[in-house]
Amino acid sequence: MTAQAAALSFEDKLANYADLLVRVGVNLQPGGKLRVNAPIEAASLVRLIAAKAYDAGALDVSVNYQDQHLGRVMYERATDAALDYAPEWAIEEPAHQMDDGYAFLSIAGSDPDLLAGIDQGKIARRSKTMAILSKPLAERQMAFEINWSVGAMPIPSWAAKVFPDVPQEQAISQLWDAIFAVSRADQSDPVAAWRTHLERLSSVTKYLNERRYSALHLRNSGSDITFGLADGHLWAGGAWPAQNGILGVPNLPTDEVFTAPHRERVDGYVSASKPLSVRGTLIEGIRMRFEAGRVVEASATRGQDVLESLLNTDEGARHLGELALVEYDSPVARAGMLFYNTLFDENAASHIALGQAYAFNVEGGTQPGRMAQAGVNESLIHVDWMIGTPDTDVDGIRADGQRESVMRAGKWAYEAQSEA
Amino acid sequence: MTAQAAALSFEDKLANYADLLVRVGVNLQPGGKLRVNAPIEAASLVRLIAAKAYDAGALDVSVNYQDQHLGRVMYERATDAALDYAPEWAIEEPAHQMDDGYAFLSIAGSDPDLLAGIDQGKIARRSKTMAILSKPLAERQMAFEINWSVGAMPIPSWAAKVFPDVPQEQAISQLWDAIFAVSRADQSDPVAAWRTHLERLSSVTKYLNERRYSALHLRNSGSDITFGLADGHLWAGGAWPAQNGILGVPNLPTDEVFTAPHRERVDGYVSASKPLSVRGTLIEGIRMRFEAGRVVEASATRGQDVLESLLNTDEGARHLGELALVEYDSPVARAGMLFYNTLFDENAASHIALGQAYAFNVEGGTQPGRMAQAGVNESLIHVDWMIGTPDTDVDGIRADGQRESVMRAGKWAYEAQSEA
Ligand SMILES: [Zn+2]
Ligand SMILES: [Zn+2]
Ligand SMILES: [Zn+2]
Ligand SMILES: [Zn+2]
Repeated sequence: MTAQAAALSFEDKLANYADLLVRVGVNLQPGGKLRVNAPIEAASLVRLIAAKAYDAGALDVSVNYQDQHLGRVMYERATDAALDYAPEWAIEEPAHQMDDGYAFLSIAGSDPDLLAGIDQGKIARRSKTMAILSKPLAERQMAFEINWSVGAMPIPSWAAKVFPDVPQEQAISQLWDAIFAVSRADQSDPVAAWRTHLERLSSVTKYLNERRYSALHLRNSGSDITFGLADGHLWAGGAWPAQNGILGVPNLPTDEVFTAPHRERVDGYVSASKPLSVRGTLIEGIRMRFEAGRVVEASATRGQDVLESLLNTDEGARHLGELALVEYDSPVARAGMLFYNTLFDENAASHIALGQAYAFNVEGGTQPGRMAQAGVNESLIHVDWMIGTPDTDVDGIRADGQRESVMRAGKWAYEAQSEA
Repeated sequence: MTAQAAALSFEDKLANYADLLVRVGVNLQPGGKLRVNAPIEAASLVRLIAAKAYDAGALDVSVNYQDQHLGRVMYERATDAALDYAPEWAIEEPAHQMDDGYAFLSIAGSDPDLLAGIDQGKIARRSKTMAILSKPLAERQMAFEINWSVGAMPIPSWAAKVFPDVPQEQAISQLWDAIFAVSRADQSDPVAAWRTHLERLSSVTKYLNERRYSALHLRNSGSDITFGLADGHLWAGGAWPAQNGILGVPNLPTDEVFTAPHRERVDGYVSASKPLSVRGTLIEGIRMRFEAGRVVEASATRGQDVLESLLNTDEGARHLGELALVEYDSPVARAGMLFYNTLFDENAASHIALGQAYAFNVEGGTQPGRMAQAGVNESLIHVDWMIGTPDTDVDGIRADGQRESVMRAGKWAYEAQSEA
């Protein structure tokens, strides 16, 4: 018996993808309302999403288009006063929509080099202004008041960055093919394929939550580090139920299971296994050493200034907010390419994130004061970067010091230790 | 001596145009704030406008991009409940911006055939929902709480409609040339050219305001009609001071002077001298007869259903809200083409508008009840259509019945009657 990829046309796969975002990603209900955040270059996809949403009985599809080039114009010409200007009413519309139970769908797609050459101080200044403005909304979203999801659109500048040696049309087409593959939109029944995949992530998550490890020890060719886990930490992965009861999938694709490290119990060193594209700059060759949860040494072979600017955002930027495990041969890893976008690249390897942790990664995390009490990190940033390799071994360490294998050579290896 | 058009490159003219919109249109002040409403296809122009605005010292440039194709998707797929859905928070952002003294700049540019084939009932239903939602904001804008202006961008579908027989690139280029010409962006000192032009419109307006005609009688090959003017009517044209004291130019281009007819004192018949593009349909061969201000007969050789749908919006839709005089050889008229966009086409000929009158066209017009008391029309619609021709004569009728010539053969002809 052989399994062959269904021979779908580009239009079929695009329709599948829009359908997945609406039916699996935000899982829009009849009579439901949808906010879409998207770059203007994603209009063709957004129109398909709107069509799928109305077909699903949507009461409203409210699209908020962004033009990232306006950001560059601002950095090049605006006064410092303009960089600091962020009126509170600017987030009232999404706040109202959250109040009214809108699902939020964001379409990623940006030029990785957009801000090349712009003064990092200006970018940090503006990013912080916007992060402070958006914090209340981001917290509500991270508490899953509503169902939300993130997809992507291969805009020309991004495709050209990923496939620099081919003509633009071809680069866009190749990036679409890669997105369709890792999102399972190229399969004949993508919704069924996602059901199977989500069940698998759910079973891994369930197992790790049952084991209640106090720490994980990760070793590979570039890293040797022990991650103490937050008290009452919770593993998440795949689908997630919003407070409104709707089960959506926050990221398409997603191949990770992840939890919150303890902000003061991380010790050892790590090396990046992939470059990190952030704020328009590619940071390569990152190495960091942690003592008692804090970054005490950090270097990069390229983009060191941006790395330091990130670490200096606030105190929480020097601590970890996420530890994620991904098998070395995940669909994104098998694509064998750098997407220059976290939505995809974080699914290529096990990774950590500097900065803010997710409230849903700790029991009672949305209660005031609970994050700090559980030793969970808080910050204005959340930046994922890859440390996983095919030679990654991960042990789980129980409260009594007993070790159990979780990953061996980059693959799940926990069945032998199951208490079942 | 010869006057030659300056040999400017496309980029020069485009920069001139953006500059005119910022410096003449909204007349943005240092430290000022700007809201831009634009179709996503206008991004390249919007980025230039943002650059000019920051160069002028803007504190904020807030861009609201619209995707008109989403409207079509909605009409094709959405439920009636969705067509009726318009939450009040949807206009809170522009309301906050108006409170905060933002200048408003809108970029026109739409596919004249976008809604071809869509059920007129649905369009009327949605248009009315949105008009009711926007009414408070529209009233504040028409009361010139803030300085605002309207420009345009030749999006591909629009350019193809205007120049159907040439390749797309060329159509866009030709439409840009036409816009540059009628907006004076092709001149070497466009700001100075606008100063001269605005002074001329101001002197016509001043003259008509001094004469205080009780009615105007317009005759040409297709029309013979007497427009009673509202009590305390005011003529406007060219620049207009906002309540914040900033003198902007609401439309670029603008070649009209206009006032408010009395809603019950219009008698006679009119014929359209140009087709009217409205709600995605071209209406041709319009003829209407007015009795006591009300449309009592209306026909069109094409698009009669859309015309009737407009007239049935509300009672005010059958009365006039504007009478505008334009010389027959205005720049837009000399361009010798139909732009399929009111911003341009209304400057090709004298015209009338069905529906809402402007509060600034009557003394004290923003005071509650004053519009009705002065006999000024109110409605959810405002639709301009052209009745001017090269053989248009206009007489001013004084309160005592004395007649004075205002226009002869489509040109101003009032100097002889001046009381100066
Ligand atoms: Zn992650
Ligand atoms: Zn993350
Ligand atoms: Zn007009
Ligand atoms: Zn008008």
